[in-house]
Amino acid sequence: MASMAAVLSKTPFLSQPLTKSPNSDALPFAAVSFPSLRRRGGGGKVAIRAGLIAPDGGKLIELVVEESRRREKKHEAAELPRVVLTAIDLQWMHVLSEGWASPLGGFMRESEFLQTLHFNSLRLDDGSVVNMSVPIVLAIDDEQKALIGESKRVALVDSDGNALAILNDIEIYKHPKEERIARTWGTTAPGLPYVEEAITNAGNWLIGGDLEVLEPVKYNDGLDRFRLSPAELRKELEKRGADAVFAFQLRNPVHNGHALLMTDTRRRLLEMGYKNPILLLHPLGGYTKADDVPLSWRMKQHEKVLEDGVLDPETTVVSIFPSPMHYAGPTEVQWHAKARINAGANFYIVGRDPAGMGHPVEKRDLYDADHGKKVLSMAPGLERLNILPFRVAAYDKTQGKMAFFDPSRPQDFLFISGTKMRTLAKNNENPPDGFMCPSGWKVLVDYYESLTPAGNGRLPEPVSA
Amino acid sequence: MASMAAVLSKTPFLSQPLTKSPNSDALPFAAVSFPSLRRRGGGGKVAIRAGLIAPDGGKLIELVVEESRRREKKHEAAELPRVVLTAIDLQWMHVLSEGWASPLGGFMRESEFLQTLHFNSLRLDDGSVVNMSVPIVLAIDDEQKALIGESKRVALVDSDGNALAILNDIEIYKHPKEERIARTWGTTAPGLPYVEEAITNAGNWLIGGDLEVLEPVKYNDGLDRFRLSPAELRKELEKRGADAVFAFQLRNPVHNGHALLMTDTRRRLLEMGYKNPILLLHPLGGYTKADDVPLSWRMKQHEKVLEDGVLDPETTVVSIFPSPMHYAGPTEVQWHAKARINAGANFYIVGRDPAGMGHPVEKRDLYDADHGKKVLSMAPGLERLNILPFRVAAYDKTQGKMAFFDPSRPQDFLFISGTKMRTLAKNNENPPDGFMCPSGWKVLVDYYESLTPAGNGRLPEPVSA
Repeated sequence: MASMAAVLSKTPFLSQPLTKSPNSDALPFAAVSFPSLRRRGGGGKVAIRAGLIAPDGGKLIELVVEESRRREKKHEAAELPRVVLTAIDLQWMHVLSEGWASPLGGFMRESEFLQTLHFNSLRLDDGSVVNMSVPIVLAIDDEQKALIGESKRVALVDSDGNALAILNDIEIYKHPKEERIARTWGTTAPGLPYVEEAITNAGNWLIGGDLEVLEPVKYNDGLDRFRLSPAELRKELEKRGADAVFAFQLRNPVHNGHALLMTDTRRRLLEMGYKNPILLLHPLGGYTKADDVPLSWRMKQHEKVLEDGVLDPETTVVSIFPSPMHYAGPTEVQWHAKARINAGANFYIVGRDPAGMGHPVEKRDLYDADHGKKVLSMAPGLERLNILPFRVAAYDKTQGKMAFFDPSRPQDFLFISGTKMRTLAKNNENPPDGFMCPSGWKVLVDYYESLTPAGNGRLPEPVSA
Repeated sequence: MASMAAVLSKTPFLSQPLTKSPNSDALPFAAVSFPSLRRRGGGGKVAIRAGLIAPDGGKLIELVVEESRRREKKHEAAELPRVVLTAIDLQWMHVLSEGWASPLGGFMRESEFLQTLHFNSLRLDDGSVVNMSVPIVLAIDDEQKALIGESKRVALVDSDGNALAILNDIEIYKHPKEERIARTWGTTAPGLPYVEEAITNAGNWLIGGDLEVLEPVKYNDGLDRFRLSPAELRKELEKRGADAVFAFQLRNPVHNGHALLMTDTRRRLLEMGYKNPILLLHPLGGYTKADDVPLSWRMKQHEKVLEDGVLDPETTVVSIFPSPMHYAGPTEVQWHAKARINAGANFYIVGRDPAGMGHPVEKRDLYDADHGKKVLSMAPGLERLNILPFRVAAYDKTQGKMAFFDPSRPQDFLFISGTKMRTLAKNNENPPDGFMCPSGWKVLVDYYESLTPAGNGRLPEPVSA
């Protein structure tokens, strides 16, 4: 399972001294971990840049209609054939609207879909390449296709029929579900959470086009204040004077091993010569599978961790990444990294088995635990991003705290997996002291308590977010 | 099914005038067919170059040990742990040894394997990208892995134990069969011919390394004279003074629709300003599935077609492409195209559903018939290759010959699929006059007659090549 920082890896990362150079663009951490994988430039040095990394394609593509034109656009939308969005469709519309997938200008047309499936990247008109590993597509069924007829535009509406967006210059093409699943997940085994939720029963057609979103997307769940768009994040990061931004994607509670890693990364970036590295602590906020801790509880837990001083609020930005989760391992981790470039991150922390999960049918992990970081370090369009593989942290029994694993004394370390952590919290047991700040742990215990026993005395099943 | 030139496509190809320009590098035919897919440079013009296109990576990588060192290398091989090659492994070794997969220097290590699966391309040390869509890997089982132990080199031997090659600086890594199959074929359905032949029962490990082949690969089947290596083909094409080389991959008998297309392509290349375009008629010679016509019979048929004057021997080179067949559609067609760059081809003819087949379980084609040429036209590392989509040919009943389909009078055209063609030949029936030269047709009839009825009166099952 994809528990972060919690399982032994053979290679200790970040174990070599880093040097800085203003003239080079390479990946010291990746070079340490994968001596056989070379990045262009080579040489183990990192460029110190002024200003934030540029978005993919050079410009952040925001697709929300400007205020002065909304009224007019809503009138237009009212006249168009309608496509009703699911909750996950709406999350993708949100992702697109704010430019996380820049330079993508809407749900994918077939040429983009095929490039994503086959090459995990898109070639732009100028010949340059950007990464794009996960299809961002909108499915419709035969009936909807017939209703659209010859129209070149459609309105995208919510389940109450409210118009949310217009899709222009549309292209409708076949939805090759089996092929999409096989090429995205590397398996077609039944039981992949995103597939069952969003693909199996989806329509047999995909509709792509240029998106105009009528209003900024809000969820009114008390968490919108955490949902900074890439433009807003860039503004915040600039305001703080960040000269390096290191992103940490997560969909689990933060424990002290994560905190250690993040603190240590900042220390190393300072050593490299950066003056003000800022951590983007960036929990995923879209669809997650039923046994993940829901977003609202995770956010409470993250707040406690910050309050507790485990992470420094001065140098940490906590924000929600609105993407749904695919659990597609090496394919998806590229999306997670690429989207953060668009938000201004030039360093990306990658762990063991990122975006991975257990095989839905066989008794093994779906992905090789090392493939994610290997694939990420070689991915087309991500050459500008510095990949920081996890150094393995575990509970050091001799120190009574989370520490980097020391392979010379393995017997002193305790690895607490995500499953183990959840089981402890479910049973209202405590982890070893120093594993997580007590106020953060209490949030987890409270979450599992909130799933009050049903009449039969069993815990109700948690549901997908 | 993937019958070439035989099924209606909505877009007539090659229907626009082509212009030449010495300063541009773009794809006029692809631009005609896919107005939404832009290649760098744009503009619908083709460069006229002096000399043949350079091999991928700049240099043809040949891996056969030079004669003076063979004795010494054979002695070395005798001392090494052995890996026994299957017939298909040997075909891949042949492919590698002659540089069809340049710049690949041997069976893939994991970093190459992962790039192939995820990106269909390899990034070289200088940052440039070459296409590589099909894994060229060597599987070993637990027992073989144990025998190899700590050795950094192994000998590759045939089923009689004769040493054929040395693999140096080896890397052994897990063989993720399900993921390999899903990402290569876009399905994991049972019944994929190559999978059943070469993957399902293969070992759970892959072994990569730098290859040294001890002798040029020969099959002694009377067809070695047709097996020109890329270097030999380049020599032949230069001898003929080719200023454009257009490759035609096939694994079926040639009919007059193909001949029409090839002749017409030459005419158009002449119109574009090339003085001496040469056709590389390049049947695939490695593993094929049981119901394909075997190589030896196809070669007889191709010889008759040339003898008959249907194609001009002066401007046609017939040679065998030694690769095994994957039947992996849009993924595999890239390999077919890329390998031909290494043999000097700068134009590649692509048909409907290239390298496609019926879905092994469902009653439909495995791939969308148009995806092959779309994917090919967007594939990383193939930007230098000019893609020529098929213009659709069919039997014109009014003219009594194969002609380009005229959508204004569909009733006049008869589409004869590969399946239909094989059924006619099996039953010793004749196709309409003008479909194929009679001597070529006779070869097909003879092939099916050679499968003499078994005792039960039924035809014996044909076997895989």
